[in-house]
Amino acid sequence: MNSIRRIACLLLSVLLLACLIEGELFWLDGLLETQIPEESNTRSEFEEYGALQDSVWEELSCFPVPESETNTAATVSFENTWHAERTYGGTRSHEGIDIMADLDKSGYYPVLSMTDGTVEKVGWLEKGGWRIGIRSGNGNYYYYAHLHSYAKKWLAGDRVYAGEILGYMGDSGYGEEGTTGKFPVHLHVGIYIPLGADQETAVNPYWMLRYLENRKLRFMY
Amino acid sequence: MNSIRRIACLLLSVLLLACLIEGELFWLDGLLETQIPEESNTRSEFEEYGALQDSVWEELSCFPVPESETNTAATVSFENTWHAERTYGGTRSHEGIDIMADLDKSGYYPVLSMTDGTVEKVGWLEKGGWRIGIRSGNGNYYYYAHLHSYAKKWLAGDRVYAGEILGYMGDSGYGEEGTTGKFPVHLHVGIYIPLGADQETAVNPYWMLRYLENRKLRFMY
Repeated sequence: MNSIRRIACLLLSVLLLACLIEGELFWLDGLLETQIPEESNTRSEFEEYGALQDSVWEELSCFPVPESETNTAATVSFENTWHAERTYGGTRSHEGIDIMADLDKSGYYPVLSMTDGTVEKVGWLEKGGWRIGIRSGNGNYYYYAHLHSYAKKWLAGDRVYAGEILGYMGDSGYGEEGTTGKFPVHLHVGIYIPLGADQETAVNPYWMLRYLENRKLRFMY
Repeated sequence: MNSIRRIACLLLSVLLLACLIEGELFWLDGLLETQIPEESNTRSEFEEYGALQDSVWEELSCFPVPESETNTAATVSFENTWHAERTYGGTRSHEGIDIMADLDKSGYYPVLSMTDGTVEKVGWLEKGGWRIGIRSGNGNYYYYAHLHSYAKKWLAGDRVYAGEILGYMGDSGYGEEGTTGKFPVHLHVGIYIPLGADQETAVNPYWMLRYLENRKLRFMY
């Protein structure tokens, strides 16, 4: 009796102790995981980020809208609206830069590929309207949205060269296929960098576009 | 007897079960911690880095070497030597960009502050020679090294404006105070971003300098 009770008590205390120790260890592990690697990861991840971003810079070749050789009024302008709030289709933050057509004429300004690459996605998107997405050699994704029309019948896999006309600037989107006129004519430019398996993140194209402003091609239009 | 034994057994089983469940939960937590947040952290940290890097872009005002209004041969050139290997003082990677003087004349080219800010460090460094470090309003650190001389007797805390002459390009460094001539005349530009408490990381100034190339001031020299 007494010995059985004693053994049971002993076993119980041992088990309780084991549970406590295990809990403590996990708690310590948790602390270590949340505190130490944060700082040291940050630096190397920063370098990784820098390298990924540089892989965009390296391949940028020209501004996505050429300068008009004939019409001095056919200018464009853009501001740093990165992460500004957008409300269509639920509140979200702006993952790109809008290049506004100073002449509000749909189908007038050519839209050029900023990089070499291949067509990955083409066609209608509710938010993007007639859009085209180019995957570059470095694996980055360049998204051009709200087009009026395409320069040709693009198919996924088509090779594209920097400076090639993809289509024409428009005001398509924010509705079912073919919706236009919901906002002024502009080109939305998005740049996405791959982040491991099946993830990507948008980078701010603003400073890239400011850099490319001095690398505009000149077209007759 | 029997009832005590039964109760003990019951308690034991309950405890064992509790331990198993707890272990399982921790194991699941571990799995979740190592798999899910990794990806999502990366993304938010990416955004943080983007914001930090944009804080540099925003405050960049002019190229650190002005264009000469009088001497067309007084040009400079630079390449993307970011993380190229350096051997002086132990193998290390290049944390900046070298702007080479096409005229190899020490003390000839003015060196301008790219940003507003205050002088944080000034004087001799074995690797940097006569150097000056400017802390900007956004908290970033701009490091200009290998100067021939300073524009004035800078003191820590002095206010500096973008475009102001800090000193003159030279070939100082790689030895004790006053060492010159160990390499061609050039300006080493480093840009450092604060990373939490007491840490900072260098960013690649190459694309920033390429952007600023189109924002050169013009000086008589």
